[in-house]
Amino acid sequence: MSLSYNQIAGRSLDRLGALSDGVFAVAVTLIVLEIHVPVLGVEHPSNRDLWNALLPLWPRFLTYLLSFMTLGIFWNGQQTQLQYMARADRHLAWIHIAFLAAVALMPFSTSLLAEYIAVPLALVLYWLNIAIIGAIIYAGWSYARRAGLTSDEVTPEVSHAVRRRIIVAQALYALGAALCVIDTRLSIGFIVLVQLNFAIAPGIPILSRI
Amino acid sequence: MSLSYNQIAGRSLDRLGALSDGVFAVAVTLIVLEIHVPVLGVEHPSNRDLWNALLPLWPRFLTYLLSFMTLGIFWNGQQTQLQYMARADRHLAWIHIAFLAAVALMPFSTSLLAEYIAVPLALVLYWLNIAIIGAIIYAGWSYARRAGLTSDEVTPEVSHAVRRRIIVAQALYALGAALCVIDTRLSIGFIVLVQLNFAIAPGIPILSRI
Amino acid sequence: MSLSYNQIAGRSLDRLGALSDGVFAVAVTLIVLEIHVPVLGVEHPSNRDLWNALLPLWPRFLTYLLSFMTLGIFWNGQQTQLQYMARADRHLAWIHIAFLAAVALMPFSTSLLAEYIAVPLALVLYWLNIAIIGAIIYAGWSYARRAGLTSDEVTPEVSHAVRRRIIVAQALYALGAALCVIDTRLSIGFIVLVQLNFAIAPGIPILSRI
Amino acid sequence: MSLSYNQIAGRSLDRLGALSDGVFAVAVTLIVLEIHVPVLGVEHPSNRDLWNALLPLWPRFLTYLLSFMTLGIFWNGQQTQLQYMARADRHLAWIHIAFLAAVALMPFSTSLLAEYIAVPLALVLYWLNIAIIGAIIYAGWSYARRAGLTSDEVTPEVSHAVRRRIIVAQALYALGAALCVIDTRLSIGFIVLVQLNFAIAPGIPILSRI
Repeated sequence: MSLSYNQIAGRSLDRLGALSDGVFAVAVTLIVLEIHVPVLGVEHPSNRDLWNALLPLWPRFLTYLLSFMTLGIFWNGQQTQLQYMARADRHLAWIHIAFLAAVALMPFSTSLLAEYIAVPLALVLYWLNIAIIGAIIYAGWSYARRAGLTSDEVTPEVSHAVRRRIIVAQALYALGAALCVIDTRLSIGFIVLVQLNFAIAPGIPILSRI
Repeated sequence: MSLSYNQIAGRSLDRLGALSDGVFAVAVTLIVLEIHVPVLGVEHPSNRDLWNALLPLWPRFLTYLLSFMTLGIFWNGQQTQLQYMARADRHLAWIHIAFLAAVALMPFSTSLLAEYIAVPLALVLYWLNIAIIGAIIYAGWSYARRAGLTSDEVTPEVSHAVRRRIIVAQALYALGAALCVIDTRLSIGFIVLVQLNFAIAPGIPILSRI
Repeated sequence: MSLSYNQIAGRSLDRLGALSDGVFAVAVTLIVLEIHVPVLGVEHPSNRDLWNALLPLWPRFLTYLLSFMTLGIFWNGQQTQLQYMARADRHLAWIHIAFLAAVALMPFSTSLLAEYIAVPLALVLYWLNIAIIGAIIYAGWSYARRAGLTSDEVTPEVSHAVRRRIIVAQALYALGAALCVIDTRLSIGFIVLVQLNFAIAPGIPILSRI
Repeated sequence: MSLSYNQIAGRSLDRLGALSDGVFAVAVTLIVLEIHVPVLGVEHPSNRDLWNALLPLWPRFLTYLLSFMTLGIFWNGQQTQLQYMARADRHLAWIHIAFLAAVALMPFSTSLLAEYIAVPLALVLYWLNIAIIGAIIYAGWSYARRAGLTSDEVTPEVSHAVRRRIIVAQALYALGAALCVIDTRLSIGFIVLVQLNFAIAPGIPILSRI
């Protein structure tokens, strides 16, 4: 009976993972859907006509890159958390559903930022979306620890590292967003650099798990 | 041979779960796709311009929240049911396919409600969608019990609790929908509260499984 | 080493199933995306205004129902075939990828039929899509038998039943499509009845597996 | 503890596979979404009216076919690579996330090519997308070999064959793209033939795994 319960909990973690993979996959692909093929008014367009029409799309591609990295970071982070779980309960499931609700908003935030890349409010709302995702994933970890859902291999050091990683990342994102009082492009550049660092760099083993 | 049959049944439940996760993931993310980035007619829009253009989008975000909770509740409910199954047969598969057909309509119902949030008919149709999903999931459980598909751990008490949970939830949704004769906003507020209660609150163990 | 190969083959079948679940889930949900919320030109629309604007959408809902059943039937059919496989090879994978390419066209065929429900050509193209899906799934089974990919439980009787089921279904669809020389609505009604029969009725065990 | 680590690594590969299946499934289905049902200005359109309106859509269907084969080839290629992995690490995960970022751009490249099928730049950008996907999957294999992530069954011969296959394919795609200096239709025809060859033909066992 106890075994049976574990099986159910295990399948539950699997389906939570599957739902998450689905939401991430759709969210990421929908961001591209918002990049519309330009309409040229010309009968036989030349390479130059097409190139000139594509150039103004650069904010779309930049924010696509930005959002893909953001979603990649959070997908990795959530996956690591779920792997550290011994079992799930309904509260954990709901925290992760809320997490996905915020993830699913990213195509909208990304389009908003792409369309109004020079407007600070667009950047602040984009950052707010990232901050909410971060806060929920932090809450998910805190709850899992409190409710004893994490597996035995999660030592206090591991748990501390997971928390610190989220806080450090969010602090850097907040700093980046704050730079929009100077220039939104400075904000975006800073956040892209922070993300590239998270995606490519870290050498400290435990940190690199998120 | 008997083992082999069980394996097939198991994979069948897995694929039903995978299809469901896919439909839920897409449905949830498509609701956001219907939130269009506002078009400002201004050359260099200010924060205020953007803010004023975003404000009228509040019904979209409210109904997104509403539908995400609705879909989360049904995803949890279906997942719990599937976990309680020892095996599947083609009738169960078709009931769940019908369930997914109704789930896939939620982005449309949500858009309709968002666009015509003050029109009672939009709310009634939204409720109808929820009611159909609820009726099918109830039918799925009834059939599984009748056909002996549920696992040994499903006692009559568990089964009774599953049924009662669906009926109570649907009764509250119906009550909420009925409130639209007074004001549609009252309906929406009531349903959101009911859903928050289901998502966050319950302390009775068996009820909290759905 | 032989075990290892089986594991790889198994995971390959699993990923083929997962890709299929994804394509079916997206295809099914995208059909609804083509049902656009009507735009009313009225300031404060009444229930009647909304109802009158929704009524002309009936072909959309009818074809959605039709396509959902079609896709449900083929999803069940493909799932059964995959479950009968002991292993996969790259030719089988490519046949199923071609199958998914045809499945992914269903949202287009469905929209076309919904938009031009009285035009025989729209119905013929819709039927052609179904016929192509059927032909590919038939080819997939034939190839799997020839290449010895099916599992030991697949007796000649099982294999014969699988083939006959596809042929009977496709013959009925073709008959339904042919009825469009009289009236396209007759065609659609006939096909819906055939599909309801497949979804709900059959009592002969082996047939009911597809 | 070591077992536990393997389990985590295994689940990590599974989730990477699941995310990939999701992105491929959505990307493939979204390409069809860009094929819009033609709007006829006629009250009671005839078969001929509809046919005439559908004919100009041929570049859409041709490029859909092209992209479906491209994505099928890369899905098979990535799947084979993941199956040859004994474990994953975060660098491998990020390489595959970058791979998916490029895969998710295919609906845009495909639409661009469909819309401007006679413009060489559209074809070059389409090819560039394929080339980037190819370069990343090549990098993924190189990294996995260097980091010792591949399983024991991967002999130097297998590894060499995997690399050679990617290089040969990319060389042929580049050659096809170069033909656009003569005519873009020649390019497309050549690439379709190359892809059909990869999808249907090869008899050399090891090559046929990608």
